[in-house]
Amino acid sequence: MTKTVAFFGLGHMGAPMSFNLLKAGFQVKGYDPVGASLDSAGSRGVEVCTTPHQTVVGADFIVSMLPHSAAVESLYLHEEKLLDQIAPDTLVIDCSTISATSARHLLAAARDKGLHAIEAPVSGGVAGAVAGTLSFMCGGDSHDVERAREILRHMGVNIFHAGPAGSGQTAKICNNMLLAIHMIGTAEALQLGVDNGLDPKVLTEIISKSSGANWSLQTYNPYPGVMENVPASNQYAGGFMVKLMCKDLGLAQRAATDSKSYTPLGSLARNLYGIHNLAGSGELDFSSIQQLFQLK
Amino acid sequence: MTKTVAFFGLGHMGAPMSFNLLKAGFQVKGYDPVGASLDSAGSRGVEVCTTPHQTVVGADFIVSMLPHSAAVESLYLHEEKLLDQIAPDTLVIDCSTISATSARHLLAAARDKGLHAIEAPVSGGVAGAVAGTLSFMCGGDSHDVERAREILRHMGVNIFHAGPAGSGQTAKICNNMLLAIHMIGTAEALQLGVDNGLDPKVLTEIISKSSGANWSLQTYNPYPGVMENVPASNQYAGGFMVKLMCKDLGLAQRAATDSKSYTPLGSLARNLYGIHNLAGSGELDFSSIQQLFQLK
Amino acid sequence: MTKTVAFFGLGHMGAPMSFNLLKAGFQVKGYDPVGASLDSAGSRGVEVCTTPHQTVVGADFIVSMLPHSAAVESLYLHEEKLLDQIAPDTLVIDCSTISATSARHLLAAARDKGLHAIEAPVSGGVAGAVAGTLSFMCGGDSHDVERAREILRHMGVNIFHAGPAGSGQTAKICNNMLLAIHMIGTAEALQLGVDNGLDPKVLTEIISKSSGANWSLQTYNPYPGVMENVPASNQYAGGFMVKLMCKDLGLAQRAATDSKSYTPLGSLARNLYGIHNLAGSGELDFSSIQQLFQLK
Amino acid sequence: MTKTVAFFGLGHMGAPMSFNLLKAGFQVKGYDPVGASLDSAGSRGVEVCTTPHQTVVGADFIVSMLPHSAAVESLYLHEEKLLDQIAPDTLVIDCSTISATSARHLLAAARDKGLHAIEAPVSGGVAGAVAGTLSFMCGGDSHDVERAREILRHMGVNIFHAGPAGSGQTAKICNNMLLAIHMIGTAEALQLGVDNGLDPKVLTEIISKSSGANWSLQTYNPYPGVMENVPASNQYAGGFMVKLMCKDLGLAQRAATDSKSYTPLGSLARNLYGIHNLAGSGELDFSSIQQLFQLK
Repeated sequence: MTKTVAFFGLGHMGAPMSFNLLKAGFQVKGYDPVGASLDSAGSRGVEVCTTPHQTVVGADFIVSMLPHSAAVESLYLHEEKLLDQIAPDTLVIDCSTISATSARHLLAAARDKGLHAIEAPVSGGVAGAVAGTLSFMCGGDSHDVERAREILRHMGVNIFHAGPAGSGQTAKICNNMLLAIHMIGTAEALQLGVDNGLDPKVLTEIISKSSGANWSLQTYNPYPGVMENVPASNQYAGGFMVKLMCKDLGLAQRAATDSKSYTPLGSLARNLYGIHNLAGSGELDFSSIQQLFQLK
Repeated sequence: MTKTVAFFGLGHMGAPMSFNLLKAGFQVKGYDPVGASLDSAGSRGVEVCTTPHQTVVGADFIVSMLPHSAAVESLYLHEEKLLDQIAPDTLVIDCSTISATSARHLLAAARDKGLHAIEAPVSGGVAGAVAGTLSFMCGGDSHDVERAREILRHMGVNIFHAGPAGSGQTAKICNNMLLAIHMIGTAEALQLGVDNGLDPKVLTEIISKSSGANWSLQTYNPYPGVMENVPASNQYAGGFMVKLMCKDLGLAQRAATDSKSYTPLGSLARNLYGIHNLAGSGELDFSSIQQLFQLK
Repeated sequence: MTKTVAFFGLGHMGAPMSFNLLKAGFQVKGYDPVGASLDSAGSRGVEVCTTPHQTVVGADFIVSMLPHSAAVESLYLHEEKLLDQIAPDTLVIDCSTISATSARHLLAAARDKGLHAIEAPVSGGVAGAVAGTLSFMCGGDSHDVERAREILRHMGVNIFHAGPAGSGQTAKICNNMLLAIHMIGTAEALQLGVDNGLDPKVLTEIISKSSGANWSLQTYNPYPGVMENVPASNQYAGGFMVKLMCKDLGLAQRAATDSKSYTPLGSLARNLYGIHNLAGSGELDFSSIQQLFQLK
Repeated sequence: MTKTVAFFGLGHMGAPMSFNLLKAGFQVKGYDPVGASLDSAGSRGVEVCTTPHQTVVGADFIVSMLPHSAAVESLYLHEEKLLDQIAPDTLVIDCSTISATSARHLLAAARDKGLHAIEAPVSGGVAGAVAGTLSFMCGGDSHDVERAREILRHMGVNIFHAGPAGSGQTAKICNNMLLAIHMIGTAEALQLGVDNGLDPKVLTEIISKSSGANWSLQTYNPYPGVMENVPASNQYAGGFMVKLMCKDLGLAQRAATDSKSYTPLGSLARNLYGIHNLAGSGELDFSSIQQLFQLK
């Protein structure tokens, strides 16, 4: 029997995720406040809904992929009060990247109403959303996370259970903070090598087989020409935008301040990406941080 | 016919490297100003020499593994003037980690005297030296680097030719700077996760399969208890000492200043390791930087 | 005719502030949840009250000097709901250092109830509180700030009107962030000089008359022995504690994250003070950051 | 009886310094490898010389104001070997900003030849050179420094004796490092305030009377419009150029590496000025670092 998914947020990430659910045989009802996004999804087979409340009627799962905490809270708690409309056997899966505090608040509110909800922020970007190879970093009750696998496995390949409510968001920002750090570090190391006469390809090959090895260097190299098929070899177009990295690094710093944790490199990474963003690079891929270390 | 290697510097790194040459069938003549090191090597089969000049007589290869530029320059150029004693068909291989400037100077001086010399700084630490799994980052003429493989392959598994004189040292410091950056970043990310309720093992597993993946996290995890058989699970004993990382980060910063390169995370890494060193952690493994982010 | 001040928070800062009001001829009614603080203030002439509500009866002014946002919100808005007990002609002056967001929230809530309230965080520390030489950085309506001068002038010498609600707190954290930066910078510069053979007194004298001049160097020198009567010459006892600087730097970073502002030195200052705090220096004066750069 | 000064380096700094000596009644013989600089000085009364050797004939004092260590060493030690041409009763005063190592080397070489030499790097910039209000940070023997006052007092107002050879350069870079730190810190604090709704003039006034006070904020404010007659209110034209600050911060980092000193804020300051320089701001005044924190 066909199951139904109510999908909120059909933008760059949400749209291809919903298409993968369609492809897997789910019925998908969609809502997005941006008309063009909604129409576009409709033309691919998503059942277009005109109100949030209409969207959730008869849904087995609700998936939301929204840009920030305020949008999530508006949908579920404040303006739309969607938690008041959801049937008890529906599972809510919020895939948005929001603060851990906000995620904990949402899951607690759902539980208070006898509902089931988990957080499941993703990593993998638009390319991963299209290919169905996202990683989901889930937080919430084990039973609910297990149940979510039924649909998450059609949108991604790694489904992690990080811990209780808030843990998924925390894992996400820890990962992205570390990603930003080794991306900047890789850019610094390659530039230092080049400025001293090394070939960036040779240096990449050496470090890849040595203790400096990391994901940025080996699969997403920021130096133009070292790798094909990465943003660095395509004028830093596409990929994961600088302004989105700034958002995630801001969430990491907020968490660090709240928990009295100290992250000197993580803090500096936020500031360097921020300076890069202010200089007009917000829409470029985040590996464009290489340019910060080169003569304009 | 047995070939002979003259080995200078029989300390924590040099001694096991020389033993691997013995095991491979080379005759090894050794010299070290520290009597105990020399005696210890002698008891393992190294032919003990009492002067540098005596050591190089009849040598096909000269290998030096010394602690700093001053020691290298003293041996080859100034006090001992060893370059004046070396036969033209001997190949000099300096494995010390010194400044690129100093390495270029040595290789040029050798060339001026009609000699053959390369730089070949290593990565892999004492464990790699013992196991014969070091990486060598060679700089110099291709022909000389090829010739060096005859002995380097018995001490290590990766033999890279980074480029002309100085390139090996540059590759080494670029690698170690990047290593320091993702080690500190990994420690920050794990602590931020733990401070927010995550299990460091679970977080390590998640990030290892995500974009934050890096060598420090995956093979040398700094959080006690996450991995067995790493210094973090043995009170940070052994491994690559904080004071040696400080030395390498100083070399990286000197190079960055000379080439007008900018490495904000690399500079901060030097300062954080320096602060850790001043606080009394110089002899600990460099993954002990985790402690900087924890309540004493 | 004698005016009455209701004073909340009679700790290290609040107590001497209240005594200066007594000295100026005001009647002071005091409340503090810590019995010892309350008794001590009582022995100096403060009229001891046992509930917040009792304290504000008949008050012309209310002054609160509390440790954090939660305490302020608990008093005025949530647990004690003091805003519901205050007469319309009473002026509320909150001197606590809290987030600008929290301050705006309090002042808006007061205004909604037809009350008058300003924020007036201070700088100058315990010494300034005792001597009556504090600076007040006020935020709120001009008329209310003018009215507050009647009592603030007995506790401090500079009474600034920074702007509307939230501006006082913002000015305070901008000042303290800049203070932390030049205190650390001064410690770094003095240590660099000493490590290169200079006398810290001579170096202090030179920089004091040059472009590096700043308040930390000239009036609160962190190098032991350079100045008399500063914490550095008294084992860093007393003064403005490291843990309080950590709190203020956390507020600055929270504000920077919220407003998408970038403060690389300010962020690093928070992390360095945090590392110093974790190492066990939380109770020392903040000029003890000098120790971070010295061999233990 | 008129005394004679041989002046080397008649650029932006050296030229106005030499004119102040002329005005004070000294005979000034000048040399500069740039013909236009030499001619321009000649038209103001400096006696034009065509070789270094000719310049020092009959000189009571030699003053050099050169751009870097290499130029100083070339003049006195290597190419021109000027130390071999100088009469024993001539006092050499090198005002160039060079490394402490290089300065120690020069003074030792002079002493070995029975000559008298001091280092006397300056602070105060072109404006101070023109106005005769420079600060001199002298290193060398007390007697020589005393003797130098006869001419230094006509070019500056503060003449400090920092200590033995190298101390003057060290004091200079400590000062300039601290200057860079509080300039960046001031720019960060003002931007954070403005981004949160404060008027930068009001905020400047408040911090100037509080513990955040420093030279950058109070006399050289980087926020456009806060002060008249500073570069910030003139499109950051003139003043002390970003590329020169980069040079001084590089010298500070080199010294810190050599002496195993740790300067996290000083290191970050070098990197931020370097990034600003790479982005095309090298010729702007150093207070333009404000722009790094603003949307382009």
